[in-house]
Amino acid sequence: MTSAYTDLVAHHQETALLAGTSALLAWDQETYMPSGAGEVRARQLALLAKLHHERATDARVRDWLATAGADARLAADPDAAANLRGMQRDFDRATRLPSSLVTELAETESRAQQAWAEARAQNTFHKFRPWLDRLLHLQQQKADCLRRPGQDRWDALADLYEPGMCGQDLEALFAPLRQRLVALHERLRAGSRPDDSFVRVPVDEPRQEAFVRAVVTKMGFDFTRGRIDRSAHPFCTSTGGDVRLTTRFHRDNVLDALGSTMHEGGHGLYEQGLEPRHRGTPLGEAASLGIHESQSRLWENHVGRSAAFWQWCWPLAQQHLGDACHGHDAGSVFRAANCVRASLIRVEADEATYDLHVMVRFELERAMLRGDLGVAELPGQWNALYERYLGIVVPDDRRGCLQDVHWSCGLFGYFPTYTLGNLYAAQFAAAADRELGGLAPMLQRGDFEPLREWLRRRIHQHGRRHDPAALCREVTGAPLSSAAFLRHLEDKFTTVYGLC
Amino acid sequence: MTSAYTDLVAHHQETALLAGTSALLAWDQETYMPSGAGEVRARQLALLAKLHHERATDARVRDWLATAGADARLAADPDAAANLRGMQRDFDRATRLPSSLVTELAETESRAQQAWAEARAQNTFHKFRPWLDRLLHLQQQKADCLRRPGQDRWDALADLYEPGMCGQDLEALFAPLRQRLVALHERLRAGSRPDDSFVRVPVDEPRQEAFVRAVVTKMGFDFTRGRIDRSAHPFCTSTGGDVRLTTRFHRDNVLDALGSTMHEGGHGLYEQGLEPRHRGTPLGEAASLGIHESQSRLWENHVGRSAAFWQWCWPLAQQHLGDACHGHDAGSVFRAANCVRASLIRVEADEATYDLHVMVRFELERAMLRGDLGVAELPGQWNALYERYLGIVVPDDRRGCLQDVHWSCGLFGYFPTYTLGNLYAAQFAAAADRELGGLAPMLQRGDFEPLREWLRRRIHQHGRRHDPAALCREVTGAPLSSAAFLRHLEDKFTTVYGLC
Repeated sequence: MTSAYTDLVAHHQETALLAGTSALLAWDQETYMPSGAGEVRARQLALLAKLHHERATDARVRDWLATAGADARLAADPDAAANLRGMQRDFDRATRLPSSLVTELAETESRAQQAWAEARAQNTFHKFRPWLDRLLHLQQQKADCLRRPGQDRWDALADLYEPGMCGQDLEALFAPLRQRLVALHERLRAGSRPDDSFVRVPVDEPRQEAFVRAVVTKMGFDFTRGRIDRSAHPFCTSTGGDVRLTTRFHRDNVLDALGSTMHEGGHGLYEQGLEPRHRGTPLGEAASLGIHESQSRLWENHVGRSAAFWQWCWPLAQQHLGDACHGHDAGSVFRAANCVRASLIRVEADEATYDLHVMVRFELERAMLRGDLGVAELPGQWNALYERYLGIVVPDDRRGCLQDVHWSCGLFGYFPTYTLGNLYAAQFAAAADRELGGLAPMLQRGDFEPLREWLRRRIHQHGRRHDPAALCREVTGAPLSSAAFLRHLEDKFTTVYGLC
Repeated sequence: MTSAYTDLVAHHQETALLAGTSALLAWDQETYMPSGAGEVRARQLALLAKLHHERATDARVRDWLATAGADARLAADPDAAANLRGMQRDFDRATRLPSSLVTELAETESRAQQAWAEARAQNTFHKFRPWLDRLLHLQQQKADCLRRPGQDRWDALADLYEPGMCGQDLEALFAPLRQRLVALHERLRAGSRPDDSFVRVPVDEPRQEAFVRAVVTKMGFDFTRGRIDRSAHPFCTSTGGDVRLTTRFHRDNVLDALGSTMHEGGHGLYEQGLEPRHRGTPLGEAASLGIHESQSRLWENHVGRSAAFWQWCWPLAQQHLGDACHGHDAGSVFRAANCVRASLIRVEADEATYDLHVMVRFELERAMLRGDLGVAELPGQWNALYERYLGIVVPDDRRGCLQDVHWSCGLFGYFPTYTLGNLYAAQFAAAADRELGGLAPMLQRGDFEPLREWLRRRIHQHGRRHDPAALCREVTGAPLSSAAFLRHLEDKFTTVYGLC
């Protein structure tokens, strides 16, 4: 190893310590921070973003990259070569952004997120509107710094989250997918909707919590390097040394807590499955947000909403939830967890309509970034698309365009990673099923280790070695498509709805 | 205001954001962090310490201080003049420490603290010994950087916590105080020890927690800018935007939780009472650790262990603690809270013997820093002094020299601030009693506002405007002495023990 490479690694590892510090501050903001600390927290996060950006754009990095890039021994070492590719990409991107913009983004995003939470609670879009105007303007500036000549603004931002993702390809992927999803939804109307009364049985919070902790422990989440807390919106973050999930509890919907926790648990297993020896370098980071989402959706849906899982899980549910289980059984709860109903809130959507929510946001944020849609027109357009894609009327902005935190914290170009996650998840689950000789019997006996270790071996431990498209081919032998996802949905839902 | 002063203030405010960030990481380490994250956390804290030190020693600070120091208008502005004095002091001190030592201290301290926790749990001093050796060596280096020619190492370190404090003065203060405390202890043996059975009544944790929260809310702790969590050792810290207390619960000792919470609540009121407009500058910081401790001890002992307080508090205790209160009354619980008994653990000691614990540590750490006492000899010397000062035999190191966290996190020269806090507390309480026309009637009706606002007006809002000795004269009209403290102890304990 040349000294330039050693210096690069040491520099990146130290920079990662700052990123983990920011993650802890952001986690605290959503979990334990008293409201009065918001102002100072925004300034702390802005300062850390500035320091992080200064380190990421340090002129020495350019020199080290040049020296290490010219070294034939490093080019022949697959780990070093992959790390150098990732570092070069990150450096090129970071140096396109002026420090003042990075600081302003971090501070505005922390404040806007607090303003959004208030506006949503009060259902007052007009109070959030000036913040969204400001955020959009900053994101446009950011996109203009990042984009190549002729490149779309949305594409320049989306590439931050999903390397290689572009709006045009997504349009081509989404249009037929939308048709098939709408057609499936239509078809299910002819079937018999499952009894989902289990969803509304009240269960007190300590029982729900003990139950979901038992499941996530069984999944293999390592509590010596992780924890679970509560927040208004469940999320998963890594502080560098440990991985933190959050979840939430509704007294009348234990399946929501279970789904959220298994979802975040899937993210958590990915973070815990990254190689500790690569910590702080590209090989120790997740491949993309779409791949990250594939891990959460795989555990939430392909495991947690499967008939096999509920055969194992039902005795555990009875043990923890007690009386709430009377009159239900593994089969009825599996069906209750798979009830399809066009609904207002993305994070509560069923598997068959979820992606229609994503497509609404994808369309709107592209139009906003292009300047074709003004912030004032957002609520109207949002509501129109919900009527067109999901056939439902949005009664207020709280359950409409104010429902998601993303735009308030500067995440434009991010939403489609959710749908990519669903597609990757289905394709990975099918590959695991083939290679492990059938997942169902394992899930049925609660033996999650083979699946977890397969994911670790095939995906987690590689970090950013491959870009997402290459990783998908490597793991599944085929490029990404909607096929496995649609097969999964059509198989499951026609069974649940008694149509096969 | 000259631009140099404006620049100084902005620079210090930004540096304070880093200090608050470190405080949050340290708080998290003691409250929520999973054990597996300790290694990375140590490196994060070391990096933040390095960045903080780089900012604190920035060459521009020297120039700004020189320019601002020569400005007659600033010298005539009391706020600016006080801030400039504080900033100059901090800069002079920081520039004496090499960055490499600062980083090494932070990292070693974070690791050593984790090693100490393990050694204490396992009662294995020999496992902590190499860490203590290393810490002592680093503290000696630090003292050698800081000390003036001829100055004692211990004095150079103690000055960080209590400006102006020196070992020789403390010896002169402590020797007669020790005699009086030992004599009081002797005298109480002739009295009748109060029935302290209330201390051993089991009370479940949720009830204890609701009770101590009610008390600290009544004290005026602002939960929109603060919170309470649990930790093995109660502490209070400020993250910049909010103030965090921790407490702990023993099922069989509700008075321990109450005392700890009122103690940390007193620290918390000080931090919340600092002027927000001075945040990030010396005028927005506590005057010293001795003054800080005076606030915690005043609320814990002069309020929480007074007969008047219990007259107000008893109905509240009954409401929260229920059956546990049967057979007790305000008077008996007041007496139970004031039972004197030489004991092994400092943080559980009564008011009359507490300072003997401090004196043991003061003597030992001075000898260690001088090189007169080797780390291997520490347990033996500790035990010998406990026998000499408190008349008790130390059965093991867990309850001996491993009991306190301080040395493991690099706090040498800190312990005497606890005794200074007791002396300041008594002198402040006596002054408040005089000026407010008697505290007892207010405490008796649970009206804590006059006392809290008096402390805020006379002490909190001044930050570091005065050094501790000057602040004491300013607030009480007299220099610090043991007189008020001894009067307080002798009055209370001879009453409780039926000797008057």
